[in-house]
Amino acid sequence: MTKALRLSISCCLMLHFAATAQQKQPVLPIEKQHQLYNEFKAFCSIPNTGEPAQMERNVQFITGMLKETGMKIQVLRATQPNIPPLVFAELTVPGAKRTVLFYAHYDGQPVTPAAWAKGIAPFEPVLYSAPFDKGGQLMAEPAAGEAFAGDLRLYARGAGDDKAGVMTIIEACRQLVKEGKQPASNIKLLFEGEEEKGSTHLAEILEANKDLLAADDWIIADGPVHPSGKPEISFGVRGDVNVEITTYGPNRPLHSGHYGNWAPNPAWRLVQLLATMRNNSGHVLIKNWYTDVVPFTPEEKAAVAKIPKDEQVLAASLGLAKTEGSGETQIALLNQPSLNINGLQSADVGSLSRNVIPTTATAALDLRLVLGNDWQRQIDKLVKHVEAQGYFVTDHDPTAEERLQHALIAKITHGTGYNAQRTPMSLPFSQELIKAVQAGTTKPVVVLPGTGGSLPLKIIEDKMGVHIVIVPIANYDDNQHAENENLRLQNLWDGICEYRVIMERL
Amino acid sequence: MTKALRLSISCCLMLHFAATAQQKQPVLPIEKQHQLYNEFKAFCSIPNTGEPAQMERNVQFITGMLKETGMKIQVLRATQPNIPPLVFAELTVPGAKRTVLFYAHYDGQPVTPAAWAKGIAPFEPVLYSAPFDKGGQLMAEPAAGEAFAGDLRLYARGAGDDKAGVMTIIEACRQLVKEGKQPASNIKLLFEGEEEKGSTHLAEILEANKDLLAADDWIIADGPVHPSGKPEISFGVRGDVNVEITTYGPNRPLHSGHYGNWAPNPAWRLVQLLATMRNNSGHVLIKNWYTDVVPFTPEEKAAVAKIPKDEQVLAASLGLAKTEGSGETQIALLNQPSLNINGLQSADVGSLSRNVIPTTATAALDLRLVLGNDWQRQIDKLVKHVEAQGYFVTDHDPTAEERLQHALIAKITHGTGYNAQRTPMSLPFSQELIKAVQAGTTKPVVVLPGTGGSLPLKIIEDKMGVHIVIVPIANYDDNQHAENENLRLQNLWDGICEYRVIMERL
Repeated sequence: MTKALRLSISCCLMLHFAATAQQKQPVLPIEKQHQLYNEFKAFCSIPNTGEPAQMERNVQFITGMLKETGMKIQVLRATQPNIPPLVFAELTVPGAKRTVLFYAHYDGQPVTPAAWAKGIAPFEPVLYSAPFDKGGQLMAEPAAGEAFAGDLRLYARGAGDDKAGVMTIIEACRQLVKEGKQPASNIKLLFEGEEEKGSTHLAEILEANKDLLAADDWIIADGPVHPSGKPEISFGVRGDVNVEITTYGPNRPLHSGHYGNWAPNPAWRLVQLLATMRNNSGHVLIKNWYTDVVPFTPEEKAAVAKIPKDEQVLAASLGLAKTEGSGETQIALLNQPSLNINGLQSADVGSLSRNVIPTTATAALDLRLVLGNDWQRQIDKLVKHVEAQGYFVTDHDPTAEERLQHALIAKITHGTGYNAQRTPMSLPFSQELIKAVQAGTTKPVVVLPGTGGSLPLKIIEDKMGVHIVIVPIANYDDNQHAENENLRLQNLWDGICEYRVIMERL
Repeated sequence: MTKALRLSISCCLMLHFAATAQQKQPVLPIEKQHQLYNEFKAFCSIPNTGEPAQMERNVQFITGMLKETGMKIQVLRATQPNIPPLVFAELTVPGAKRTVLFYAHYDGQPVTPAAWAKGIAPFEPVLYSAPFDKGGQLMAEPAAGEAFAGDLRLYARGAGDDKAGVMTIIEACRQLVKEGKQPASNIKLLFEGEEEKGSTHLAEILEANKDLLAADDWIIADGPVHPSGKPEISFGVRGDVNVEITTYGPNRPLHSGHYGNWAPNPAWRLVQLLATMRNNSGHVLIKNWYTDVVPFTPEEKAAVAKIPKDEQVLAASLGLAKTEGSGETQIALLNQPSLNINGLQSADVGSLSRNVIPTTATAALDLRLVLGNDWQRQIDKLVKHVEAQGYFVTDHDPTAEERLQHALIAKITHGTGYNAQRTPMSLPFSQELIKAVQAGTTKPVVVLPGTGGSLPLKIIEDKMGVHIVIVPIANYDDNQHAENENLRLQNLWDGICEYRVIMERL
């Protein structure tokens, strides 16, 4: 068989044979894996943490990949300059009854390169035979004709969250178009560059392009699949808002010997203030924290009951002897608002530690919200709690006068937040999507009423009047948001096959 | 009057006239100020945080300054290589009845240059007209013939703590020797390079050089004078030991959305653990923390009653509306063991903060000890307390097995500590020293039973059988141990005059 002939047996056909006729897991041809690996590696080598020129390079890369689809491409910008734009593309199908918009984001969380493992840098993608901390070794890419199979990982910021999502959607489209296939619906693609910063300008751009972006349903390619490795559909997300609390000690660092016991220490104040907020099993003690939570519907409860029971295995793989809560399941705990400490900082520890009373201490908090919560109301509860502990709450570093007026001062600042979103599973669209995803895989699909992660879907739902569902593809251990982010390449290959079927059937 | 003639009116004579005949504050001649300023600036430009080659450069600088005294100089080394050595010098006075050893240290606390103010770097000394944060301006050095007077500051790591002490002792000696004056006692000088690291090798070197270093009394030139600016003598120090506590979460950083509320967060654990240790007014809640404290004697209480009552002024200058404790004076609080947080760290805050559940959280603690405390016993109390909160306590990062065996794990590590020391004020030496210091100044001398700071004096007292007293010279606002350390140059000039009188009279 000639090489050209082998290539002509397209991924599409293989998928159909595998998934429908023989019930084998669909696979992406090896030549295609090599081509996509090189493209994805180049994509991941472009920094994506917000620097405007770099974000534009990402945009150029995405529009370059989209050109092969022949779709109409537009770059949608905020009125303010230097904001990472949205990349939009559309494909109109004559006679289609539905318009489905596929969304992913190309920006990544901030990086602290020093925290990454030796030999792994955020924007110099490297290939490992398995996770580096589980015996994986740095490796050259497989020779031509050999698959990128098994547990192979590409390490880079954004690899899992969410350049894999961008790549999956574009490649699924490219395959359809190349083969002259017709999707079942009109297809629109939208790639955002500010998701990790709270989608600050998304609402503005949606508003300004309401007709262009009009759709019936949105499918989001973001987040990791279930820890069991099974394909997943999630019908909702938690909301989110970031808050920082800073407490104050003396106006200059003091010698801990000459002043210790006499001058108040801001680290002790922060510790004592935070300790009033949460008990040892993780229950938040702030007044009314849970009162507005909407519980699961009977339908959602039924879906939850079918989720694989593998929490103990997951906990053990994470080195955890015990998880939080008072016996609730993980999914039940994720349907509660959280108060997470993202980071603590006061002066230094380790070799840089000095015998001082620091001047300030800061906690970075992450408030996840569930259906019923409102992000501004949740912050208000937190502020009221801090005030109830005797603190003067301000949004700026205290002035010299304020310092002398108040014994306890807390600066509380916050970003722009958004509320949780949930799509009913009973909708025809929801039921059809479950069937389409199941058609692209031999594994049983895990259906969740919602994931613990956050996306600004509520803003989109309200503004655009659409149904939104998430079909993630990344591995659960992709270290997203952390150092050593990686993508299991098999997840990308499987994800592309999955999305191909969704586009063809839905 | 020729320049030579002006110079021949020595500092020594001026001091005697000023302090005994006319009761004016002794002053250091302006030419001498210029010469010493240049020398001190060069001294402070040599990094002194522990890098062996740099520490040797400090040693060379010190021996260079000492050469002018004609004293016998020796560099005393630990058996282990790369340990900063002690510099020793002696001057034998025929017929002297007493041997007084003068001690200071040339090493400084670690530095984080990024935390220092703009234009101020740890080892590029710069001159300011006053503290930079109180309106002081960067300035050129005064023209020849103009004094370095008023509130002038030299900014550098080690300027106040304790290169000023080294310089004071050497210059006082140099002046005596140059003028052919005879000190009242045999004089020995000792300069250490490991004080800020807990004087790890001091005991070994003292033991190996017991005869060489034999003395009746030690006078320590270290620490700041009383905040009132009055000269000070301190008859004791607190002991000290550093401890670090690290708590553990998952074995890799987790997305705070997908795992928040379920995976334990080490920052919350640390906060909740620390909060059990201390109440809001600063009282330590660890069992038996205070039980072995030796209270002040009636004599010490009488000295304390004479201390200037200026705590409210000091607190206001530090931007503090309220100090800790339940109404005790500062000196009473400093005579209690402390549990200070030097630093907190878990992941990141501010622009580097990410929505993660961190893997670890660390608190750097500083335990100051008073008479009656033992540093190992104090650590034991802390460890027992942590265990009583349900923690498995270890001295290493937990193994995978330990992680799965224990829900709560704390790594507790500590440095080498030392206990508090106090010299009775009733000794003839003590009384004579008080008179000598008072003779060198027109200001009333502040006499303290002990300072809040720490030095390994107990080790020296026990090993060498000597009386030890501290006569500090640095300004109280020298930012010692912190960023932007500085020395008020007038304090150096006054300190040199003070030590001249001590050496002549004692």
